[in-house]
Amino acid sequence: MTERVVLAYSGGLDTSVAIPYLAEQTGGEVIAVAIDVGQGGEDMDAIRKRAIDCGAVESEVVDARDEFAADYCLPAVRANALYMDRYPVVSALSRPLIVKHLAAAAKEHNATIVSHGCTGKGNDQVRFEAGLGALAPHLKVIAPARDYAWTRDKAIEYAESKNLPIDVSAKSPYSIDQNLWGRAVETGFLEDIWNGPIEDIYDYTADPAVTRDPDEVIITFDAGIPVALDGETKTPLEVISELNARAGAQGVGRLDMVEDRLVGIKSREVYEAPGAIALITAHQELENVTVERDVARFKRTVDQRWAELVYDGLWFSPLKNSLDAFIDDTQKHVTGEIRMTLHGGRATVTGRRSETSLYDFGLATYDEGDAFDQSLAKGFVELWSLPSKLAAARDARVKG
Amino acid sequence: MTERVVLAYSGGLDTSVAIPYLAEQTGGEVIAVAIDVGQGGEDMDAIRKRAIDCGAVESEVVDARDEFAADYCLPAVRANALYMDRYPVVSALSRPLIVKHLAAAAKEHNATIVSHGCTGKGNDQVRFEAGLGALAPHLKVIAPARDYAWTRDKAIEYAESKNLPIDVSAKSPYSIDQNLWGRAVETGFLEDIWNGPIEDIYDYTADPAVTRDPDEVIITFDAGIPVALDGETKTPLEVISELNARAGAQGVGRLDMVEDRLVGIKSREVYEAPGAIALITAHQELENVTVERDVARFKRTVDQRWAELVYDGLWFSPLKNSLDAFIDDTQKHVTGEIRMTLHGGRATVTGRRSETSLYDFGLATYDEGDAFDQSLAKGFVELWSLPSKLAAARDARVKG
Amino acid sequence: MTERVVLAYSGGLDTSVAIPYLAEQTGGEVIAVAIDVGQGGEDMDAIRKRAIDCGAVESEVVDARDEFAADYCLPAVRANALYMDRYPVVSALSRPLIVKHLAAAAKEHNATIVSHGCTGKGNDQVRFEAGLGALAPHLKVIAPARDYAWTRDKAIEYAESKNLPIDVSAKSPYSIDQNLWGRAVETGFLEDIWNGPIEDIYDYTADPAVTRDPDEVIITFDAGIPVALDGETKTPLEVISELNARAGAQGVGRLDMVEDRLVGIKSREVYEAPGAIALITAHQELENVTVERDVARFKRTVDQRWAELVYDGLWFSPLKNSLDAFIDDTQKHVTGEIRMTLHGGRATVTGRRSETSLYDFGLATYDEGDAFDQSLAKGFVELWSLPSKLAAARDARVKG
Amino acid sequence: MTERVVLAYSGGLDTSVAIPYLAEQTGGEVIAVAIDVGQGGEDMDAIRKRAIDCGAVESEVVDARDEFAADYCLPAVRANALYMDRYPVVSALSRPLIVKHLAAAAKEHNATIVSHGCTGKGNDQVRFEAGLGALAPHLKVIAPARDYAWTRDKAIEYAESKNLPIDVSAKSPYSIDQNLWGRAVETGFLEDIWNGPIEDIYDYTADPAVTRDPDEVIITFDAGIPVALDGETKTPLEVISELNARAGAQGVGRLDMVEDRLVGIKSREVYEAPGAIALITAHQELENVTVERDVARFKRTVDQRWAELVYDGLWFSPLKNSLDAFIDDTQKHVTGEIRMTLHGGRATVTGRRSETSLYDFGLATYDEGDAFDQSLAKGFVELWSLPSKLAAARDARVKG
Repeated sequence: MTERVVLAYSGGLDTSVAIPYLAEQTGGEVIAVAIDVGQGGEDMDAIRKRAIDCGAVESEVVDARDEFAADYCLPAVRANALYMDRYPVVSALSRPLIVKHLAAAAKEHNATIVSHGCTGKGNDQVRFEAGLGALAPHLKVIAPARDYAWTRDKAIEYAESKNLPIDVSAKSPYSIDQNLWGRAVETGFLEDIWNGPIEDIYDYTADPAVTRDPDEVIITFDAGIPVALDGETKTPLEVISELNARAGAQGVGRLDMVEDRLVGIKSREVYEAPGAIALITAHQELENVTVERDVARFKRTVDQRWAELVYDGLWFSPLKNSLDAFIDDTQKHVTGEIRMTLHGGRATVTGRRSETSLYDFGLATYDEGDAFDQSLAKGFVELWSLPSKLAAARDARVKG
Repeated sequence: MTERVVLAYSGGLDTSVAIPYLAEQTGGEVIAVAIDVGQGGEDMDAIRKRAIDCGAVESEVVDARDEFAADYCLPAVRANALYMDRYPVVSALSRPLIVKHLAAAAKEHNATIVSHGCTGKGNDQVRFEAGLGALAPHLKVIAPARDYAWTRDKAIEYAESKNLPIDVSAKSPYSIDQNLWGRAVETGFLEDIWNGPIEDIYDYTADPAVTRDPDEVIITFDAGIPVALDGETKTPLEVISELNARAGAQGVGRLDMVEDRLVGIKSREVYEAPGAIALITAHQELENVTVERDVARFKRTVDQRWAELVYDGLWFSPLKNSLDAFIDDTQKHVTGEIRMTLHGGRATVTGRRSETSLYDFGLATYDEGDAFDQSLAKGFVELWSLPSKLAAARDARVKG
Repeated sequence: MTERVVLAYSGGLDTSVAIPYLAEQTGGEVIAVAIDVGQGGEDMDAIRKRAIDCGAVESEVVDARDEFAADYCLPAVRANALYMDRYPVVSALSRPLIVKHLAAAAKEHNATIVSHGCTGKGNDQVRFEAGLGALAPHLKVIAPARDYAWTRDKAIEYAESKNLPIDVSAKSPYSIDQNLWGRAVETGFLEDIWNGPIEDIYDYTADPAVTRDPDEVIITFDAGIPVALDGETKTPLEVISELNARAGAQGVGRLDMVEDRLVGIKSREVYEAPGAIALITAHQELENVTVERDVARFKRTVDQRWAELVYDGLWFSPLKNSLDAFIDDTQKHVTGEIRMTLHGGRATVTGRRSETSLYDFGLATYDEGDAFDQSLAKGFVELWSLPSKLAAARDARVKG
Repeated sequence: MTERVVLAYSGGLDTSVAIPYLAEQTGGEVIAVAIDVGQGGEDMDAIRKRAIDCGAVESEVVDARDEFAADYCLPAVRANALYMDRYPVVSALSRPLIVKHLAAAAKEHNATIVSHGCTGKGNDQVRFEAGLGALAPHLKVIAPARDYAWTRDKAIEYAESKNLPIDVSAKSPYSIDQNLWGRAVETGFLEDIWNGPIEDIYDYTADPAVTRDPDEVIITFDAGIPVALDGETKTPLEVISELNARAGAQGVGRLDMVEDRLVGIKSREVYEAPGAIALITAHQELENVTVERDVARFKRTVDQRWAELVYDGLWFSPLKNSLDAFIDDTQKHVTGEIRMTLHGGRATVTGRRSETSLYDFGLATYDEGDAFDQSLAKGFVELWSLPSKLAAARDARVKG
């Protein structure tokens, strides 16, 4: 039987060229699978057809936007997922979802090979292959850019020699990955880390420095999940899409950083993630109101580890699952409303209310109605600081 | 011999009233010590004289601003100290410094009692008394607000009955603590956590929503310490003061949060810390460029614990010292320049350069000159994900 | 209505005397509740009757041994709970269970006060009162030893004056707390930490130095829970009781340590916990076989925090619950058999087998059948060590 | 110029055969370097000569035993280094030392290649190559077993064909690595993890089950470093050697475990480390006496990470250095004496004394002289448990 190759297809030059090339190299048939994770841009049906025109025996499009929003983006909100305290793991979140659909397509079409367009120096190859190792370990993986040392120039040459229906002239000066959760931009001039970004590279966000009226939004959470905007119930996809539009229009969510890749090098990255930043900011403050102190302190460690695992390609790992169990338990009472002003690149919480709040006006107030018994403090302070006090006395004794 | 009481003196109603009251209660003499940690406001000499007028046998002012900047604020920069990922431990930093000077004054004046103005439901009492327990465990501590259940009304009544030279009418609607590192505001209407802050409560920062020109600053760090602005060498005090002015003028550094107090309750706090936020933001990005990945990951845990310890009053604790030893070692190469735009409430890094950078253009670039051997990646990915893959295979085997 | 006091009753001098004394002090009626957590010693019915003879209006005994084994000891096995890597939180585990039954008794009898026999310098007062604060915050707590500064001499004098039916002469030289999970001994001569324990203080364990034949046991776990010994299905209570007997007969489980109390002081403690040490040792090794590496590494932090929380009296805390959720998820596949030799004070694992093992003979063997592709290692090693290598190169460059 | 290869030489079959083979493959000259890390066995001079007989152009022996004891084993004591809470990183400690001497030899002899005998599925290849990457990144590394897929049978055939002076018949059934810090044994029948070890595989330890008299030793530490035994000052090498002998004679330090290798697989390992286990046990207890509680709690995390890094081949990493800075600071006062009984496979602490102790008899005693003010406890307990209490009240409120 002819071998079948499932290819993660984007519609661009590299993966289009890969269709005939993989067929040649493997002697097999190529099935193109394009996954809609909210990347926008070209019409998905045009992409589907292009794969056929390039020689795919089958070509399919999966609309995974709702699934991506609910099962990948929202867990990232609950984990306040910010790699290196900054990056909301935008590309890292879409990879496991894509892997899941590739594995399903491979099963459906009896494919034995899966192929993706990642290079050998980025994180995404790890995310693809670690995911496939977990979900479909019997599949062979080919990454032409890495395994055949495929370059853009080679790709263009090949496309022209085969007369493939691809516009090879339209080279963007930027390397971009985008989805519902955000957008990543890399580009030559930003590889000099002293150079600042220019307005031209942004697409999800307006210039925060332009004068405009602020936008106020009320986000309702139920057990750590955003369920409504301004009192109107929304699906996860709707919540994120609307906040991308509204926060993006105010210039919220631009990030520019040097980051530690899993493969051991540092790289410069520019991101836009308006909805992600607005949601995580709101969620963090609702946690401040509803989550007990020791849980909150420990959860910072869990959240950090969660973001590292997802960044590092280990979405389908046992530790990710066990951290999720911890996080789930902490979110039971993260329910309530956050009022937030979106303006001038800032997403600023201005109010919070919750039926499950741990904020107790009676205990907190300095005005009338104060219920806190201050006489307890003396004993607390004394025993709280006793170990430090004993250590200081020991140090003094030793010094003489 | 008459007992002597050293009082941490602010010049305000509560500590002014405490002078005659402590003398009455203890039968001793009161020595007022006012510490200048950059709180601004009233002239320090006027404060010094008022203490005498209220009955202090001695009154002194300590200009501790340089010491505060160098020995308290800058370690907080190196630790990226943000309690709950937000609050740059403004008041928490000044308390141990004040304690140090109180202990020194007590020694100089042969005092046996120290007194401070904190209540029994805040964090500051812990910071004072834990610090005194470590530095001068033999001293007795009296906190009139807590230990004598002293209230504002009682204080006014007492001041009037004793004819003390204090203006008791001028009640600010806000409870404020401020120093070089920032400013904290609490107030009645903010105790309803749904209420947003109003412009009136801010003093260190201009309204970020007002249109103005951006300000660009280059901050030079040497081993994690900011040493110059725009190429001009500055003392720590000068760096922080100038950044407070420049970042404050752009509305940078406003914070509004519900926070977990050490005494077990949640409280609403509004802060302004323009210089602190600008410096920590710059420092974090320079660490991204110069600190190795595993160090950076572990340091997040150390930084969090550092901020918790300082917030919790344990500045003079053995763990704080040992964390400092770790942090010192990580900062050796945190040297270089950060270019930052201050504008519209945002402190945005736009460039970084460093002789000790770990960013390697040759390894990072996708353009010509790429030095990264992509063929190594396949083996890395395979072994990196092997444990997850084996676990997934086990799970599948068990289920099926 | 007459106030009612529920007293945690042990049958000993202190709590017997507390019955009439609490009645006197509160003007109320005292209900004695004795909880059987496997402490052995006196017949529970004799204890029950003594309370009545001392003036209790009601006296009840709760046989909580099965509940203690299943709901308190076994979670400690799953968490490998060893405070300071040593102490299996023996007393700390029984306190929340006792609190639960006290709160239930208070509800049943409409009591408004609960009383316990703890002093003010130990951990147990915290465990009682933190637990009651969570389960029954409306109850007032009285600890006569602490709140009335009650001492042994006072208690004897009072008992004699009231003619209470207690043998006041039989003072043990040791202060002991024991239950199904172990036994704690404190005593005057051990307060000199240079003194070694003597054979006389032990009761759960035989002298490990005496020559005897070894005992081999096979412990079967299902999802982290021990369910059978030597192939015979047992209840949790039976498993622990039998292992206490068998491991105790071989001198397993003696501990002698200086430990950090929650109240801020260090104390010397001697423990015996034969069953606990045998079970935790077996469980740890079964985890080595069945738990994925990253989970195992992170779980050490979780386990440590779990033991600290339980030691620190926070059994009924939100963080304990969330850590339990994490631990539950990790235990799904901790299923299999551990063969262990009990002998000479040692509990030594000699074999492990599991249907859910992650140990893969084909990958591990150096003999024929080796399935591990060694050629992958080169790339792995290279990228794994790349960050260290780049940092070393930077350090060399900087040094010049 | 002829290329030169520095070979880590053990004297055994594999590395002896590698001498002519590397010369053949590289066309270069081979320099054999044997490092004495206390592995015992054959005379080092005989080993040196064998390399020459096999064709090495130079052959040298480095006596690194004192250096290994002082600079590698003792830091492991201070870090209580037990990978997976069990394994005292025996082989992992010697690799960086060997690497250091290989790099020095390569420099001295102008070699461009370094070679070692590790396979591609163990941890040691990583330790060698990560170390070389840090110390001498310009050197090329060849691991014949991995890179030339060299097997034992191939080696024997080659040795016979070349008439090399090696006894190829004497195959031990065990694969062994040993040094001053301990001994590791792997073998075919132990790859079935249900099989128990047999007495025959042990060499550093006597059978703990044999009846003999106990041995009591007093270990003196100075700042975390063992400096004397039974009051007699010793070098680090002497301390470890003597404790290996004395603890080994009592059967102390046998370990049998399934462990997580860095390359992603689980393996069965049997270890003997009598001196290491005795020293770490003593050191842990002296820390219990002299290290403040919060430091001790945080240090567990640091110690675990230290052992993982060393196990994972990252001795020369920046994080290892920074953790060392933390540990150094914690050890200032870990000074004093531990009395320990070595007997029947157990190393049991029976006494501790220290001028820098934090144990305070006056605070700890329940007898006369009690200096602890129990009245402080009530306030402490109340505020300590307030967050849990508020959370419990919230949960009850929400449930209705």
